[in-house]
Amino acid sequence: MTKKHKVMALDAGPPDRLEAEIAEYFRKCEEKLGFVPNVFRAYAFDNAKLKAFILMADNLMLGDSGLSKTEREMIAVAVSAINHCHYCLTSHGAALRQRGKDPELGEVIAQNYRAAGLDRRQKAMLDFAAKLTEAPDKIEEADREALRKAGFSDRDICDIAAVVSFYNMSNRMAAAADMRPNTEYHYWVRERSEEAASPALKRLPARAPVTTASASPRRRSARGD
Amino acid sequence: MTKKHKVMALDAGPPDRLEAEIAEYFRKCEEKLGFVPNVFRAYAFDNAKLKAFILMADNLMLGDSGLSKTEREMIAVAVSAINHCHYCLTSHGAALRQRGKDPELGEVIAQNYRAAGLDRRQKAMLDFAAKLTEAPDKIEEADREALRKAGFSDRDICDIAAVVSFYNMSNRMAAAADMRPNTEYHYWVRERSEEAASPALKRLPARAPVTTASASPRRRSARGD
Amino acid sequence: MTKKHKVMALDAGPPDRLEAEIAEYFRKCEEKLGFVPNVFRAYAFDNAKLKAFILMADNLMLGDSGLSKTEREMIAVAVSAINHCHYCLTSHGAALRQRGKDPELGEVIAQNYRAAGLDRRQKAMLDFAAKLTEAPDKIEEADREALRKAGFSDRDICDIAAVVSFYNMSNRMAAAADMRPNTEYHYWVRERSEEAASPALKRLPARAPVTTASASPRRRSARGD
Amino acid sequence: MTKKHKVMALDAGPPDRLEAEIAEYFRKCEEKLGFVPNVFRAYAFDNAKLKAFILMADNLMLGDSGLSKTEREMIAVAVSAINHCHYCLTSHGAALRQRGKDPELGEVIAQNYRAAGLDRRQKAMLDFAAKLTEAPDKIEEADREALRKAGFSDRDICDIAAVVSFYNMSNRMAAAADMRPNTEYHYWVRERSEEAASPALKRLPARAPVTTASASPRRRSARGD
Amino acid sequence: MTKKHKVMALDAGPPDRLEAEIAEYFRKCEEKLGFVPNVFRAYAFDNAKLKAFILMADNLMLGDSGLSKTEREMIAVAVSAINHCHYCLTSHGAALRQRGKDPELGEVIAQNYRAAGLDRRQKAMLDFAAKLTEAPDKIEEADREALRKAGFSDRDICDIAAVVSFYNMSNRMAAAADMRPNTEYHYWVRERSEEAASPALKRLPARAPVTTASASPRRRSARGD
Amino acid sequence: MTKKHKVMALDAGPPDRLEAEIAEYFRKCEEKLGFVPNVFRAYAFDNAKLKAFILMADNLMLGDSGLSKTEREMIAVAVSAINHCHYCLTSHGAALRQRGKDPELGEVIAQNYRAAGLDRRQKAMLDFAAKLTEAPDKIEEADREALRKAGFSDRDICDIAAVVSFYNMSNRMAAAADMRPNTEYHYWVRERSEEAASPALKRLPARAPVTTASASPRRRSARGD
Repeated sequence: MTKKHKVMALDAGPPDRLEAEIAEYFRKCEEKLGFVPNVFRAYAFDNAKLKAFILMADNLMLGDSGLSKTEREMIAVAVSAINHCHYCLTSHGAALRQRGKDPELGEVIAQNYRAAGLDRRQKAMLDFAAKLTEAPDKIEEADREALRKAGFSDRDICDIAAVVSFYNMSNRMAAAADMRPNTEYHYWVRERSEEAASPALKRLPARAPVTTASASPRRRSARGD
Repeated sequence: MTKKHKVMALDAGPPDRLEAEIAEYFRKCEEKLGFVPNVFRAYAFDNAKLKAFILMADNLMLGDSGLSKTEREMIAVAVSAINHCHYCLTSHGAALRQRGKDPELGEVIAQNYRAAGLDRRQKAMLDFAAKLTEAPDKIEEADREALRKAGFSDRDICDIAAVVSFYNMSNRMAAAADMRPNTEYHYWVRERSEEAASPALKRLPARAPVTTASASPRRRSARGD
Repeated sequence: MTKKHKVMALDAGPPDRLEAEIAEYFRKCEEKLGFVPNVFRAYAFDNAKLKAFILMADNLMLGDSGLSKTEREMIAVAVSAINHCHYCLTSHGAALRQRGKDPELGEVIAQNYRAAGLDRRQKAMLDFAAKLTEAPDKIEEADREALRKAGFSDRDICDIAAVVSFYNMSNRMAAAADMRPNTEYHYWVRERSEEAASPALKRLPARAPVTTASASPRRRSARGD
Repeated sequence: MTKKHKVMALDAGPPDRLEAEIAEYFRKCEEKLGFVPNVFRAYAFDNAKLKAFILMADNLMLGDSGLSKTEREMIAVAVSAINHCHYCLTSHGAALRQRGKDPELGEVIAQNYRAAGLDRRQKAMLDFAAKLTEAPDKIEEADREALRKAGFSDRDICDIAAVVSFYNMSNRMAAAADMRPNTEYHYWVRERSEEAASPALKRLPARAPVTTASASPRRRSARGD
Repeated sequence: MTKKHKVMALDAGPPDRLEAEIAEYFRKCEEKLGFVPNVFRAYAFDNAKLKAFILMADNLMLGDSGLSKTEREMIAVAVSAINHCHYCLTSHGAALRQRGKDPELGEVIAQNYRAAGLDRRQKAMLDFAAKLTEAPDKIEEADREALRKAGFSDRDICDIAAVVSFYNMSNRMAAAADMRPNTEYHYWVRERSEEAASPALKRLPARAPVTTASASPRRRSARGD
Repeated sequence: MTKKHKVMALDAGPPDRLEAEIAEYFRKCEEKLGFVPNVFRAYAFDNAKLKAFILMADNLMLGDSGLSKTEREMIAVAVSAINHCHYCLTSHGAALRQRGKDPELGEVIAQNYRAAGLDRRQKAMLDFAAKLTEAPDKIEEADREALRKAGFSDRDICDIAAVVSFYNMSNRMAAAADMRPNTEYHYWVRERSEEAASPALKRLPARAPVTTASASPRRRSARGD
C-alpha cells in the first residue's frame, strides 16, 4: 500500500492557534485514546468549525438518548458502509468493536448489517438508516411507523435520524477531503471477544472515552452501555 | 392541499426551557425575518442540539469564506434539489432568491442547476456538489483538481465540501421528520428582480440576516456579497 | 444568472410559414396568456410536428377525463420534478399554482409530492406516476390494482398513464434542446392564495386558458375543476 | 407461456365509432401488414387520442428527416431495450429487422446496442439516446456537441431527441397498460438476410409500410433508405 | 451491421492443444449443434479454464434438479436481460425457445419476464432472480421465504441461486471480452410453435443437445422436461 | 450479536458421501488453515457442484497468471465490497491481509479501493472491476484499452475479467444462502505488518495455502508473490 502520511488531500492552511478549550480537549484525546483523531486535525485550520463539529458529534454520540451508545455506533457504521467511507468505517468500526465488545459484530455491520442476525429493534433501526441514506426523498409516514412498531419513541426516532444524517454529512466531508484515519484504529479490539475483555481494558483508561469523536468523559447514555 | 400545521411529524416532547442565548437568538429572528424558522422549533426540545445546529449552520453560511454567501446558498439549493427536500428547497430557495436578488435564478437552481447557464466557476462548484451528494464514494483527486482549475483554493474546496455535506445532513433530518417550512418563505422575493430591489428591502430590515438558519448580523463574507 | 435569450440550444432552422390554423392558435395564446409558450416556438420550424404536439397536449390536459385538470397538472409537475426538467417545472408549476389556486401546493409538488399531505386518491395517483417514470419495466398488475382500490376506473388509469408518459416525453425533449421557459411563468400566481383569487383573475382573461400548452377555451373536464 | 389474448390489461371501454379517416387507415394496415397493430386497438376507445398518436408517430418515423428510417427504428429499439418494453421491442424489433434487412442487427440492438459494432455516427446517436433515456437531467451542451462532431446537424439532433422522447412515452404507455404486441411481429424477417431479401419482399406488398405505427405509403425520408 | 468475425475482442493467445476429453466434447458439439459455441472457443487458450467452465455449466443446466431445464434457461435469459448481455441473450434465448418449444416465450423473457404472464411459481422464481442480480446485498430471509411459499424446496432455492449467480458471472465475462455468439443461434426455433415442432426436429439431431453450453446427452432433469 | 451457528440459511440436505479426492482436499484445508472453509461445507450436499467450484476457484486464484495472487485477492475484495458480501469480505479480506502482509491494505480495499492510494496499474485494474461489477452492459473497447495502457496484456485482461466475474457469482451465491464465514477469518493477520511477519508465519504452516478457496500448495503465480 502506497503510504499517505497527510491527514487529508486538501491543504486548508496552517492550524489555527488552538483555543484553550480545544487544546484541553486534544490533551484528553491524547491521554485517553493515545492520539488526536485525524478528523479533528483536519478541522484544525479553523477553531470555530472544529468546535461546532465536536459539539454536535459529542452530543449525538455521547449525550442522553433512548439509543444505547453501541446502537448509535451501529448506525454510524451502517451508514458509512453504504457510503463506502474509509475514514468512518475505520474509526467508527473500531469504536463499535469496542462498544459492543465484539470484533465480529463490528466487522459485519461494516460489511452488511443485513447479515448480522440482528433482533427486530436493531434491524428496524438500520433498515430506516439505510433508506434515509439511500433515498431520503422517499421516506414516508410508514417508515416512521415501522420504527414505532419496533419499540422506538418519537424522540428515539429523532435521535436515529440525527445520527444517520450526521454520518451522511461526515462521510461526504471525509470523501471530499480524502481524510485518512489514524492507523491505530485498524488494530483496536481485534482479539476474540472472550480474550479481548482484559487487554482492551488494559490498553484503554478505565473511563474510556469510547467514541472516536470525543474525549469528554462525563456524558452518559440513558440506556446505560 | 391538505394543510399540515405542525412543525414536524415527530413528537419529540415539549420544548426545552430556552437558554437566554437561544431566546435572544429567536427574538432576533422574529425581528428580522418576522418568524422563527421551523427547523429551530423542531430542535427546541433540546437546547444542546439546537445550539450545535445553529453554531454549525451560521459558521458555514455566514462565516468568512472564499465563497460568496450567494454561492453557498446555491450549493444548499442544488443539493436539496437532488435530495428533493421540501423544507430546504423552500427555505433556502427563498434565501437564494433574496441573496441573488433574482427570483428566476433561485428557481432554476431548485429545479436543475445545469439549466442555469452558470459561469465556469459556479458550474464546477455545483458539479462537485452533485457528485459528492450522489456518489460520495467515487470522489477522486480528479474531482478536487477540477475545482482547483476552476479557480478554487483548497480552503475554498473545504468550504464547498462542508456546505454540500451539511445539506446532505439537513435534507435527511427534514425528510426523516417530515419537517414543514414556514409558509412565509414561499412568498419571499417573487417579484421580477428589477422591481424586487426596493420592496424586498422595504419588507426586510436593513441589516437583514438573509440566511434561513441565522439571525446573527455581524458576520461577513470575505467575498463581499 | 447568465441570461440566455434563445428559445432553445438547437438551431433547427427558420420558422416554417405558419398555417392559418396555427397562426390563429398563436394569436389566442398572445391574447390569453400574453405570450406564445416557448415550446411552441421551439417546434415552429415544422408545422406538422407542432400540430401533432398541440393536438396531443390539448387532448390530454384539457380533454374530458375522470381526472380533474388540476390533477393532470399535478402529474405533469410530479413527473417533471423527478426528471428535474427546468422547462416543465416552470411552465406547469405555474399552471398548477393557477389551477389549484394555491401557490404552496404548486411548489411542494415541484419539490416532492410526498411532502404535500395529499389525500389517498392523489397520493396513489402520484405514487404510480413516480414508479412509471423511474422504473417502467417494473410496473405490474399490483400497481394498476392499487389505483383501482384508490377509486380510479380503468379509463382513469389510461389517462394517468397517458399524462405520465407524455411528460416523460416532453421532459426529455426539453432537456435535449435545453428549452427555456417564458420568464412570465416564474411570476404567475405567487401571492398567498386568499389574496391571489382576485389579482389572478384580474391579470388573466375571464376564460383563462389555464394550461401552458393550449389556448383552446372550449374543452371541459368531466370532473369540473 | 400462459396466453393472454386481450390487447391490454386495462378495460378502457368499448371502441369509439371509428371516424372514416381512421377506418381507412386501419384498412390499409390490414392490407399491408396483415393486421392492425394492437397499439391502435388499445387507443380505439377514443378517436381523438388515436389520431394524435398516429399523427405524431407517423411524422417522426416516416416524415422527412436527416435520419434514415432504419436509424429511427434503431433509436426506437435501443430506447425500448433500456426500458425493457415488451410491446415496443417486439413491434419495432420487427420493423428494424425489416428496415435494416438484417435479423441479427435488429436483435443485437434489442439486446445491447454497444455490442453491435456500429460506426461512429450511429454509436454517437445511440449513446445520446441512452443518456437522454436514463438521465435526462444530466444532458448538457457537451452531449449535443458530441452529436455535431459525429456529423449531425442541429435539425438532426431535434429528430434524434424527438424519437428518443417519443419512445420514452410509448414504452411507459405500454408498460402501464401491459400492452400486448400482435404475435405476427415475432415471426417477421427471421431468415438469414441473404435469403430474406426475396421472401420478405414476397410476403409484404411492394410499397410496404414498414413501420409498425403507420400504413401511410406516401412519406419518404430525405436520406433515402 | 458492421460484421465482427472474431470470437472476442481480446487476444488471449493461440488455442491450447486440446486435451482428448475436450476435443471429443467439441466433436460432439459439432455433430449435435452444427458448431462449437464461441464461448468455448473463447476459453480455448487454456484447457484448465475451459474444463472448469464446462463442468460447472453442464452441472447447473443439465444436472438433476427440482427445476426443469426450461426453468433454468428462463433464469439464464431473465438474468441476461437485466445485464443486457448480447452473447447470453442470443445463445440462451435460442436454447429457451427450443426447450420451451415456444419462440414467443423465449423472446418475452429476453425482453421483460414481467410481461410473460407466468404462473406464480415461475414468477416468484424470476422475481428472486431479478433481485439477486440487481441488489444481492438486500436479499433477506423474506426473499427465501417467498420462494418456499411458491413451492420451492431449500434445495431448489440453492439451484435457483446457483443459476442466477452463474449467469451474473457469464454475462460479465462476455461483456468484458465482447464475446460474440455464433450466428446460428439467431435463427433457431423462430417458426410459430405449432409448425415449429417438425422443422425444428428436422433441423436438429434427434437427441438434440438442448443447452448452449453442453453437448452431453446423458443427463436428465428430475423434473423431466 | 445474535449468534448464527449454521453454515447457511438453506437446508440443502445431508452432505453427500465425500469422494476420496474431496476428502483429501478437506484434510489439507484442516491441516493448513485449521478448518474447512464454510463455502465448501455449504456445497457439500453435492460432490459434483463442490468439485466444479473448487476447480474454478483454484484455477483463478492460484493458477499461473500475469496478475499476482495479491492482485487477484484485491479484485475479490473490491468486488465483494461493492456487493456488500459478508462472506467474501470476511474470507478474502483475511486472505488479502495475509497475501499483502498488510492489515491496513486489506481493510481499505474492503471499504473503498479508491482510498487506498494505489499505483496506476492497480487503480486501473480495480476501476475496471468496479465498472464490470456495477454496469457490465456499459463496458466498451475504451475500458479494455485503459487496461492495456496501464500495462496489462489481453491475457491479463481475461484474468481480471474472470476474477471479477467469479466473485460476482460467489457474492450472489453467498447472499442467496446467507452463507456464514468461519469466525477464524476475522482474526487473521490483524497485527501491524512490521510485527505481523513472524507471528503470521508461526501461526500458519510454512507452505501456507493462503487462499480461502484452496489448500492446494503446488500452484504458483507467474508474477511470483
